[in-house]
Amino acid sequence: METDPGFIAALEEARKGAAEGGVPIGSALVAADGTILGRGHNMRLQKGSATLHAEISTFENAGRLPASVYRGATCYTTLSPCDMCTGSCVMYKVKRVVIGENETFVGGEEYLKQRGIEVVVLKNKECQELMKKFIAEKPEEWNEDIGEP
Amino acid sequence: METDPGFIAALEEARKGAAEGGVPIGSALVAADGTILGRGHNMRLQKGSATLHAEISTFENAGRLPASVYRGATCYTTLSPCDMCTGSCVMYKVKRVVIGENETFVGGEEYLKQRGIEVVVLKNKECQELMKKFIAEKPEEWNEDIGEP
Ligand SMILES: [Ca+2]
Ligand SMILES: [Ca+2]
Ligand SMILES: [Zn+2]
Ligand SMILES: [Zn+2]
Repeated sequence: METDPGFIAALEEARKGAAEGGVPIGSALVAADGTILGRGHNMRLQKGSATLHAEISTFENAGRLPASVYRGATCYTTLSPCDMCTGSCVMYKVKRVVIGENETFVGGEEYLKQRGIEVVVLKNKECQELMKKFIAEKPEEWNEDIGEP
Repeated sequence: METDPGFIAALEEARKGAAEGGVPIGSALVAADGTILGRGHNMRLQKGSATLHAEISTFENAGRLPASVYRGATCYTTLSPCDMCTGSCVMYKVKRVVIGENETFVGGEEYLKQRGIEVVVLKNKECQELMKKFIAEKPEEWNEDIGEP
């Protein structure tokens, strides 16, 4: 069982998303000193949003921060980040991205590494199961969320 | 003078941002048939937003769309897109990105090309002047917007 508070926050967010009938992906941004700067989950279905993936929601909820804060931070996300969310981590130059699982989908992990960001994959079963259930129930919504036909 | 309606929409958005005292970057998403699907401008200062760059605002304002619509679309932006906004264009697999200027800042143009997206740079003077004036007046806000110290 994972005990990292940042990952637990992200997983709680994914569960909230699932309970709302949304895409069950959660995220949290954690400062170098362990402070949770922001957390959030995918809001495509809840808000009709094309951009509020979990990581974007999290950066948005964390609010305006100076560059220095991002540079020591870790972005936790329950699923391998898509190209957009990868780009948000690259733009803000976070130190590390911790990923719940990448069996359902592999996003920009290699690109993160190329850009000097540490990547950790936890292979967490609950993250996988949340996605498996969602995709079985709402395959079209999942494809829409990642820009796939 | 540019006569492309998509670029004109993006430039109008950048002017709106300037009039609001915000980061003067505008964007528009235009379908294969010329329909403007969405438009928007950077909302960092207006909304205290860490993610509403012009292109993200535009994708958000365009709303939920099927993958097929993005694939023929052009994303217009008055300034070379940062890594986050580059990623949004890559994730949704737009066909083309048209950039007002890249003298102020060069974002993910090479990465867009690597990912098969056509890139056009207009070297538009008004786009350059809007940024020059903003950066002279609010250098810290500009650095914050691109995650630079
Ligand atoms: Ca489909
Ligand atoms: Ca500064
Ligand atoms: Zn994403
Ligand atoms: Zn951007």
